[in-house]
Amino acid sequence: MHELNFINYLKKTIKYKTDVICGIGDDAAVLKHTKNKHLLFASDMLVEGVHFSRNTKPIDIGWKAIAVNASDIAAMGGVPKYVVISAGLPERRALKVLKRILEGAKKACKKFNIQIVGGDTNKGKNLVIDVSIIGEVEKKCLTLRSGAKQGDFIFVTGELGKGKEKHLNFIPRLKEARTLVRNFKINSMIDISDGLFLDFYRIAEASRVGGVIYKSLIPLGEGAKMKNALSGGEDFELLFTLSIKEAKRLILYMARHKYPPVTLIGEVVLKSRGLNFVGDEGRVSKIRPKGYMHF
Amino acid sequence: MHELNFINYLKKTIKYKTDVICGIGDDAAVLKHTKNKHLLFASDMLVEGVHFSRNTKPIDIGWKAIAVNASDIAAMGGVPKYVVISAGLPERRALKVLKRILEGAKKACKKFNIQIVGGDTNKGKNLVIDVSIIGEVEKKCLTLRSGAKQGDFIFVTGELGKGKEKHLNFIPRLKEARTLVRNFKINSMIDISDGLFLDFYRIAEASRVGGVIYKSLIPLGEGAKMKNALSGGEDFELLFTLSIKEAKRLILYMARHKYPPVTLIGEVVLKSRGLNFVGDEGRVSKIRPKGYMHF
Repeated sequence: MHELNFINYLKKTIKYKTDVICGIGDDAAVLKHTKNKHLLFASDMLVEGVHFSRNTKPIDIGWKAIAVNASDIAAMGGVPKYVVISAGLPERRALKVLKRILEGAKKACKKFNIQIVGGDTNKGKNLVIDVSIIGEVEKKCLTLRSGAKQGDFIFVTGELGKGKEKHLNFIPRLKEARTLVRNFKINSMIDISDGLFLDFYRIAEASRVGGVIYKSLIPLGEGAKMKNALSGGEDFELLFTLSIKEAKRLILYMARHKYPPVTLIGEVVLKSRGLNFVGDEGRVSKIRPKGYMHF
Repeated sequence: MHELNFINYLKKTIKYKTDVICGIGDDAAVLKHTKNKHLLFASDMLVEGVHFSRNTKPIDIGWKAIAVNASDIAAMGGVPKYVVISAGLPERRALKVLKRILEGAKKACKKFNIQIVGGDTNKGKNLVIDVSIIGEVEKKCLTLRSGAKQGDFIFVTGELGKGKEKHLNFIPRLKEARTLVRNFKINSMIDISDGLFLDFYRIAEASRVGGVIYKSLIPLGEGAKMKNALSGGEDFELLFTLSIKEAKRLILYMARHKYPPVTLIGEVVLKSRGLNFVGDEGRVSKIRPKGYMHF
């Protein structure tokens, strides 16, 4: 079974009660909380040999474990609040390594105003860190993958294609996300963890729309390869859509404030038109859900 | 560094804001929520070769992953609500195994009225499942490890010593915990995941008290070894303390309702008297924090 199919399988087989506003299938679950706010709940696991190597500094692993989870909360338009950290570690390195990992995690938590409220340490054959995060979002700021509408403009934050170099000490786009959701009507949003193609595919599937992305508009990082931007993963930039009217306001806002760093890269179209990528000399190809997948 | 020292290290180095009522060091974190309720947040990781073997049925792994987390919520006097499930799996078995694990998890969630709201699947060298759980508890029902008082009677639910046989399909004591916290003033509570000695040590440390446990009073499972009850782990029974007055009410209640199944096993004393175990023929030995520890 394919990873995307598997998530569909899960989504179909689980029935939610009314206190679950959004369950499996977005960057975080959305749960009933107070009169004005929802709770956000997500989890991301980092595995040695996949998300970091044997030689990665433990302090960087700790930073990344927090940052990827904070990025999920950013993608919902929310504010991260609390994390619990579970670790599986080989005995011979064990607590010394764990202490360094937690230093990195604490550094990130301080930076992003998150509190570490629990943890669980275990023996394990290879190093695994799993962080779960609780965040909050005002009801009016909540942004799902599923809200993209025909005619929306598609934007990304920052630059793409340098995830492999930056993934260990990236800054999740929490501030940018909050600026966006508090000042504009963002119709859909996701963080690009698995490449632009796969993550745009996720928005399109959830929103039942098609889309056009223009290669010439993609903001490539200096020296980055287009291939890495499209399907390399770990850029952790935000991909979002909003109406043309709101897009115009955003562009004016950006001109005035020199912030946030966003770039228009395409347009949402009818589902029946599919997902299209306009490449060199206007050649059009189909966007396939191709990016980093575990299985 | 020793596992217990490590948790102390973490507790000491983290400063909480006022929205964290209880951070690292109990079965779950306690967070501000609504006027009458707190949020509970915990996480427990299961690792192949430690918490289950290569030959364990995936469906049992899924059940256990939910049950151990629900048991943490029970130990706080709370009601489990939502889980997210992260899995690391070797590629060759991958999604087929994951599907069976989730069947077990779904079965447990249905039984304990928990909703699975998210997940993350990853490649990994050995099988790891990490579940994080959110629960709720009425402020007046919240029960910490730290509330044991000199003179309290010490009780356990069920029988001890058969954790190794039962750990894959045990029923967390959610119902019993709720009966206890709603009808009695429980001063302290923990779930026995690492053996009676180590988990009583945790209550005593958190509450700054001493205690006496009587071997002759310990409810051993049929055919179980005393050693397994004291330091074997994975019994997942509740260990709790309450005043003599409340203990009398509990005993009368139990006589009337034939429920919950609890046994008096000892008494909380001044910290200066230490932790004592009264064994055969009244011989007294010191209780050491000896049970299942990962490092």
